[in-house]
Amino acid sequence: MNRTRLEAFSDGVLAIIITIMVLEIKVPHGNDFEALKPLIPIVISYILSFIYIGIYWNNHHHMMHTVKHVTGGILWANLHLLFWLSLVPFTTGWIGENHFAPIPMAVYGIVLLMAAIAYFILQTTIIRAQGERSLLARAVGNDIKGKMSPIIYSLAIASNFVSQWISGALYVLVALIWLIPDKRIEIILRSENEHK
Amino acid sequence: MNRTRLEAFSDGVLAIIITIMVLEIKVPHGNDFEALKPLIPIVISYILSFIYIGIYWNNHHHMMHTVKHVTGGILWANLHLLFWLSLVPFTTGWIGENHFAPIPMAVYGIVLLMAAIAYFILQTTIIRAQGERSLLARAVGNDIKGKMSPIIYSLAIASNFVSQWISGALYVLVALIWLIPDKRIEIILRSENEHK
Amino acid sequence: MNRTRLEAFSDGVLAIIITIMVLEIKVPHGNDFEALKPLIPIVISYILSFIYIGIYWNNHHHMMHTVKHVTGGILWANLHLLFWLSLVPFTTGWIGENHFAPIPMAVYGIVLLMAAIAYFILQTTIIRAQGERSLLARAVGNDIKGKMSPIIYSLAIASNFVSQWISGALYVLVALIWLIPDKRIEIILRSENEHK
Amino acid sequence: MNRTRLEAFSDGVLAIIITIMVLEIKVPHGNDFEALKPLIPIVISYILSFIYIGIYWNNHHHMMHTVKHVTGGILWANLHLLFWLSLVPFTTGWIGENHFAPIPMAVYGIVLLMAAIAYFILQTTIIRAQGERSLLARAVGNDIKGKMSPIIYSLAIASNFVSQWISGALYVLVALIWLIPDKRIEIILRSENEHK
Repeated sequence: MNRTRLEAFSDGVLAIIITIMVLEIKVPHGNDFEALKPLIPIVISYILSFIYIGIYWNNHHHMMHTVKHVTGGILWANLHLLFWLSLVPFTTGWIGENHFAPIPMAVYGIVLLMAAIAYFILQTTIIRAQGERSLLARAVGNDIKGKMSPIIYSLAIASNFVSQWISGALYVLVALIWLIPDKRIEIILRSENEHK
Repeated sequence: MNRTRLEAFSDGVLAIIITIMVLEIKVPHGNDFEALKPLIPIVISYILSFIYIGIYWNNHHHMMHTVKHVTGGILWANLHLLFWLSLVPFTTGWIGENHFAPIPMAVYGIVLLMAAIAYFILQTTIIRAQGERSLLARAVGNDIKGKMSPIIYSLAIASNFVSQWISGALYVLVALIWLIPDKRIEIILRSENEHK
Repeated sequence: MNRTRLEAFSDGVLAIIITIMVLEIKVPHGNDFEALKPLIPIVISYILSFIYIGIYWNNHHHMMHTVKHVTGGILWANLHLLFWLSLVPFTTGWIGENHFAPIPMAVYGIVLLMAAIAYFILQTTIIRAQGERSLLARAVGNDIKGKMSPIIYSLAIASNFVSQWISGALYVLVALIWLIPDKRIEIILRSENEHK
Repeated sequence: MNRTRLEAFSDGVLAIIITIMVLEIKVPHGNDFEALKPLIPIVISYILSFIYIGIYWNNHHHMMHTVKHVTGGILWANLHLLFWLSLVPFTTGWIGENHFAPIPMAVYGIVLLMAAIAYFILQTTIIRAQGERSLLARAVGNDIKGKMSPIIYSLAIASNFVSQWISGALYVLVALIWLIPDKRIEIILRSENEHK
């Protein structure tokens, strides 16, 4: 059993998630710049979530590259991740429509936190299926980013009791941390190829 | 004629089905937890159907793996299955919006029953195209799950005359039965590979 | 340049077209069978169009199989076909919502006629790119189905001046003609393989 | 790391963008030709944008064909391009609903301009990753079309202060310029193959 179809299905779901978010930017009735003003927070939340889904797709792409044999466990861990990511368009629309109000911002963070946990479960499932000496196990290493993200998400969720702007800044921070492409797996894979 | 494009198209349709269901979770106007309350039954019905579509994708993935030559019959049996699954977002939205009222719950079951029958037809078409000694014929064996599901669905549809909660419990039961990954095909395929 | 990506893109568009049609079946507010009644014509129009898109996907699948080198002309002839097919969800929704009123039924036929012409253009473009002795040229032969369909569509469009039911019957007739899988290409391809 | 999944994801997103635009053509309540009249500007804007997305898909298809090794930079430059293209359904709907009013027409042009810049960044990123002697670098050459488009877009955006019809004519002009398939890459690739 190969990974091609798992990737194709995940790509399909991620492509749809990233694109249906744009449906939240409803065509306004007016025909001047004034009519675009209420859309500004919706566009900002769209940009943030677009980057998040892009990061997940990017990392998913890298991680799946190390999978040789797809097990039932990997299939379901992957669907579990897609489930949480599928809720992102909803939470994105909610924070956009409510101008980043604290409770929508907290729920936005909870969904991101659950997606991060689901990603971690998927990663662990793959490593367990392949053995501790697997490519992915070595590539992930001590996985600083993966451990930092849930902590920052939790802080972001809690910080909504103080100010939603701290929360927003923390979401942007996580995006920035991940935006730096995951060189780790890339490097290990390249050295692997060189040894062949 | 190979199976790649059949899988790609099915993956596309299943990915869209699983994702457009989330459009039913409409962004609420309020910005507190109160605003999320009416969404609870919709989210629950979404989770149930997400798992169902996931199961179908999973089993479809396994079954298609045994197909070497795609015939016209297989193409249409596959489209027939996708037709019934394409109605799942509608019935999911209907049970969610009506808090699992008996008639929507029965219609939800009818669509699932028709999808199960369509899946059985697809399986039979593949086996007939490949001969009784085919990989799939052996893998499916006496097919307990495949025979149990339509019976439980029928019971679930009928039980709505008594209580929709029995019906709901039975839908969850079928999901649980299938959630256990289909080891049968996996095992046969593996032993096949070992003999090579 | 290979055909893989052309097929992937076409599959994606066709998968989305076939699935967004289901969005026209809006979740009703009532929770009894009465609430489903107004949906009956919408479901019927959905079934008809689902079969039509299925036929196009099926034939597209067969035809593309004969393409070895994708030219710019083939790319644009393919996009032209997808354009007309992308209007099918709209015309489907229109005939469904208006209980098959004559003018929507005529417009439904016009879009189908344009799609048939676009399919013919694509077929001709492929044959011209490959030469008259190509696999497709031989497989298509005198192309009775392909020549009959536009004639029946034209009759169906015109018959709306008399009765939309004649029109509807003719649309079902074309679907039935094509539902019989296109053995021609399958046979030629198979004999081709046997000669190798 | 190969380009297959990057193409698959891009195809998915482009297929969804091109198809969700059709959702803007809302099913009218009337059942006569009168009911279709208000849809005419929406259909015109749909045709224009369909051609634009088709052009981007076409050129993307050609350009990606020259990529052998996908880097993190290419991944993100590609996502950046998809981001701007994902806003096209919104601007398309806006110009359609407002009968090509000047400000929506200007915003339509700004999104196209940003997409053209994003395409240029992606092209530059690929060339930089492959070296100045790469296939793409030679194929692109002095890149007249690529340099002309942003200039015409800028003129089109500015011309809305005079008349939106000049702006519209310029958008059609750019589409026509690109509609002529990009022979450059095709020719270089072919001569490349002949040398092997």
